[in-house]
Amino acid sequence: MNACLFDGRAVRLDRAYPEPVPTAGEVRVRVLLAGVCRTDLEIVKGYMRFAGVLGHEFVGVAMDSPLAGRRVVGEINCPCGGCDLCAAGLPTHCRRRTVLGIAGRDGAFAERLILPEKNLHEVPDSVGDRAAVFAEPLAAAIQIGRQVELKPGTRVVVLGDGRLGQLAAQVLRAWRMAPMVVGKSDAKLDILASLGIACIHADNARPARNAAVVVECTGTADGLAMAMRFVRPRGTIVLKSTVADTAGLDLAPLVVDEITVVGSRCGPMAEAVAMLAAGQVQVEPLITAEYRLDDAPQALEAAARPEAIKVLIRCSG
Amino acid sequence: MNACLFDGRAVRLDRAYPEPVPTAGEVRVRVLLAGVCRTDLEIVKGYMRFAGVLGHEFVGVAMDSPLAGRRVVGEINCPCGGCDLCAAGLPTHCRRRTVLGIAGRDGAFAERLILPEKNLHEVPDSVGDRAAVFAEPLAAAIQIGRQVELKPGTRVVVLGDGRLGQLAAQVLRAWRMAPMVVGKSDAKLDILASLGIACIHADNARPARNAAVVVECTGTADGLAMAMRFVRPRGTIVLKSTVADTAGLDLAPLVVDEITVVGSRCGPMAEAVAMLAAGQVQVEPLITAEYRLDDAPQALEAAARPEAIKVLIRCSG
Repeated sequence: MNACLFDGRAVRLDRAYPEPVPTAGEVRVRVLLAGVCRTDLEIVKGYMRFAGVLGHEFVGVAMDSPLAGRRVVGEINCPCGGCDLCAAGLPTHCRRRTVLGIAGRDGAFAERLILPEKNLHEVPDSVGDRAAVFAEPLAAAIQIGRQVELKPGTRVVVLGDGRLGQLAAQVLRAWRMAPMVVGKSDAKLDILASLGIACIHADNARPARNAAVVVECTGTADGLAMAMRFVRPRGTIVLKSTVADTAGLDLAPLVVDEITVVGSRCGPMAEAVAMLAAGQVQVEPLITAEYRLDDAPQALEAAARPEAIKVLIRCSG
Repeated sequence: MNACLFDGRAVRLDRAYPEPVPTAGEVRVRVLLAGVCRTDLEIVKGYMRFAGVLGHEFVGVAMDSPLAGRRVVGEINCPCGGCDLCAAGLPTHCRRRTVLGIAGRDGAFAERLILPEKNLHEVPDSVGDRAAVFAEPLAAAIQIGRQVELKPGTRVVVLGDGRLGQLAAQVLRAWRMAPMVVGKSDAKLDILASLGIACIHADNARPARNAAVVVECTGTADGLAMAMRFVRPRGTIVLKSTVADTAGLDLAPLVVDEITVVGSRCGPMAEAVAMLAAGQVQVEPLITAEYRLDDAPQALEAAARPEAIKVLIRCSG
């Protein structure tokens, strides 16, 4: 089949990649549409030392199991079920997990992929492919609310106007919060403004250490340092950026101001699908371009450009 | 009066330092005994850009107010009462606060100091001076339990066998936890062992990312990186070290493993005094030496030596 690989050195299209073979409990999925995430771009720079088929955001059609013929999205973490963390109820942190397109398991930039049946979530007809493909990053945005207490009136700042910052801001708004987004792209801030979300260019922001919660979606290694200029004492920073770089950081203010930093990754897919079905999040304005699988390497290049938000790859018809 | 100053460049004894003058609500305290903290050593290296009388750990005798003649210890943060953080119930984070011997207020390495009356806590007769002087750092250790949920059986690792690590371990044990201390000094680890607290030399420790809680008391800028090797996914790191250095840090594991980092500073003094009175914490083994106020600069030098734990300064008879 056709698949877009990172072979440890370069991204390339393979037109004769081996067909994936499911084991017990696994389902083949014909990929309809996939999304390019910053994590894919970091992997290509060496993050996670992953080699294989890239991609972990997708919507597809299940080919086996009782779900056969249904459109599905999928949780990307595949736990072993036997380690101490699985036993502790933390399957997404399983020590022996594989992760779709990120660790030990081929991903979604291909005609077909494989996931455990229990990872799949059916997508209702009312949610189109171009919305459903956002389920994974949207779930990551929803995760914020599972890790941090958000009350009406809580002052929340979102740092970053890219893929995840846009979704985080929309999710917060759906929860009746009034987030302020700090970004660096006028075009991306315009999208937020058109959705009625308060936003400001970073050049004009005046950090006053008065936000109870700061959601860091900058995608840069210095995002935490920036967040510390916005968060108030005893406030919380939700850290979302996974980058391959190392940051230099003065940690003393974190101790003196008793700030809490919460690392935050994947979230609840079913809730994401429900938000999309309820029309609580507008994803169409976030789509920069749609490429064919044949052009997946170019799609990755396009996604790396500063003006890009979400680049999609059409993997099968 | 005699006082030990940091003048922005050097530590020196001043034999004719101006007597402190209380304003409304403030009480003069004759300092009996003071303790040297790592923060004092960091201030001398430039941390907080403080200049003035050093020292914030003390026991003394109140000279004015209804407390006159009573032995007292004192909370070190003096809030303004009028800012947004005071209004939000966070007086220890007041934006205009002064802090005894740390920010805008002369400290305890002197014959007399001044604090607001409401900052003072009376010390029962059963708690001697050499125990009472530990109330401030002990309160900082107790703060851990106010910020992190600790249940029986929670696997807790304390990094650091110095002043604060020793107290944190004893407090955790008093709470019926079974902390494991990782340290670098055989002599300091021996003290912990003699108190029945599990401990191991860092050279022999095998970090397995399986501690639910890691309390970072290393006093070094790379303490957080070390803690990340011990904490389990979804675990919590309590960060206690305030150091003037900047650390280089790869933050991706914090996001991927959804770790929470909690900055932790001062704590409840009354609870600290109660623990001392109840004999729940043994501080005498932690006292390295006691110096006279005349020799305070030498006391600071002694406290900076690797083998030192707590160095005390006798300020008045």
